[in-house]
Amino acid sequence: MINIGIVGLGLIGGSVGLDLRTLGYRVLGLSRREETCQKAISLGAVDEASLELSLLSNADLIFICTPISSIIPTLEQLIPFLSPSAILTDVGSVKTPIVEGVSQLWPNFVGGHPMAGKAESGIEVAQLGLFEDRPYVLTPTENTPLESVEKLEAIARLLKSQVYFCDPHEHDQAVAWISHLPVMASASLISACMSETNPTVVKLAQELASSGFRDTSRVGGGNPELGRMMAQYNRLEVLRSLYSFRDQIDGFIQDIEQEDWQTIEEKLRYTEQNRRLFLQHSLKKESGGPSQETE
Amino acid sequence: MINIGIVGLGLIGGSVGLDLRTLGYRVLGLSRREETCQKAISLGAVDEASLELSLLSNADLIFICTPISSIIPTLEQLIPFLSPSAILTDVGSVKTPIVEGVSQLWPNFVGGHPMAGKAESGIEVAQLGLFEDRPYVLTPTENTPLESVEKLEAIARLLKSQVYFCDPHEHDQAVAWISHLPVMASASLISACMSETNPTVVKLAQELASSGFRDTSRVGGGNPELGRMMAQYNRLEVLRSLYSFRDQIDGFIQDIEQEDWQTIEEKLRYTEQNRRLFLQHSLKKESGGPSQETE
Repeated sequence: MINIGIVGLGLIGGSVGLDLRTLGYRVLGLSRREETCQKAISLGAVDEASLELSLLSNADLIFICTPISSIIPTLEQLIPFLSPSAILTDVGSVKTPIVEGVSQLWPNFVGGHPMAGKAESGIEVAQLGLFEDRPYVLTPTENTPLESVEKLEAIARLLKSQVYFCDPHEHDQAVAWISHLPVMASASLISACMSETNPTVVKLAQELASSGFRDTSRVGGGNPELGRMMAQYNRLEVLRSLYSFRDQIDGFIQDIEQEDWQTIEEKLRYTEQNRRLFLQHSLKKESGGPSQETE
Repeated sequence: MINIGIVGLGLIGGSVGLDLRTLGYRVLGLSRREETCQKAISLGAVDEASLELSLLSNADLIFICTPISSIIPTLEQLIPFLSPSAILTDVGSVKTPIVEGVSQLWPNFVGGHPMAGKAESGIEVAQLGLFEDRPYVLTPTENTPLESVEKLEAIARLLKSQVYFCDPHEHDQAVAWISHLPVMASASLISACMSETNPTVVKLAQELASSGFRDTSRVGGGNPELGRMMAQYNRLEVLRSLYSFRDQIDGFIQDIEQEDWQTIEEKLRYTEQNRRLFLQHSLKKESGGPSQETE
């Protein structure tokens, strides 16, 4: 029988635990707070929970579910307690620096990114089936033990995730486009609106804003620490996406300055047609979502 | 009894007709297509419909519901047929050029912008109650007959809209921020993603894109003609908002280049806190909407 270890009992760690316990695995959870340990046990997310690293000495597969910045420091403390055959994985949203850093400390490591979440965080909002039908990206390198990759893949499929394999750098480039750039663009929209100096116009904008603004600004109103870590740990790719985005904005500015309405309409037709290529995982949700404004 | 005229039987014109007929008004509809006239009658959006401008010779209050670019040309044709006491209004999403242009042709004009809509357009999707709880902006000037403003306000309240009054220029500034800029920013996100030259990364981005990308890109995937007209008819305000937005993007680029993570987190905390000021009309929808990703 496989013992599962989970380091960091928040939304993701807790949800992994709920699913794997339901599937019959024994789940051992590590947290820095006793209160969180108690909650995880009472919610059924873990069989045992502790502040003591030694709890994981018999764990066969360990999910590190801490924030990105804590993964390496946590692992450095944890290593003396690990079984030599333990397989490690993480759930961080950036992969290159983690895969490089962790592999040096513990070669039997498979980088992972289950792409599921909620607006809220914490063990309280952990839920069964969080990863169902969601992408779960695995980023093994040529040095990653194949058997470990296969074991983690099997677990991800038990979570009913859609499993993707790619190289850590390609993962980071892809999420820069579809996850990290949107945060920066969306936040810039909010701060641009707030920069309006006529208070009557600001008030009116706030009164009239509707679903178009709500949706475009949503991820820019998300967790600030998470946004910072995207920029920090995926620095070069986020910069690259921002440069490209700025070029697009400059293009619209130029078209409008030159009153080239035809080009603007062609560009918007292009984006209308190409957007759907990105909606494979969310079409179902959108069809039931709020309607579009003709504002 | 008041006779209502509606010029342009699409989603907005048809929905105005449905509501006002239900309220007991006699509704006369003008379209350029016989087929649309027949549909409007059979859907109950109008009592009578015609291609003949003379249909509106007894209309007391006329809603011009054509695309912005057709408002002035339509009115020029219509004027010879109008009753001298007819009150005109429009539903365009930009007000300054329309109010200036129409008032010169027909002083008894009240600029209006009912801010409701759907992803689809056309008489087929017209619906009762479309304007309920939605903003309806009226933009009278000092030359607009007060009695006409009051009549239109009463009608907007019968549609159960939330009525706002402001000057046409302030309206255009406000919607540039919360409606037109989001379209340009959102479209730029899509085209930036499409500019990625590594096909593996493009494919992966399309596979992994989820609710964060879906929401941020939604209005950039909307109607291209509508987007062009926003830029064209609200040119200076859209440019102004784009300059400010580009400054915000440049700020994030500079912070990341300088690895100033603290500033990024502070900016994202500011946007997190201020976004809610813009959600008065959509909070109810959001609480039932899709959850946020921790991608």
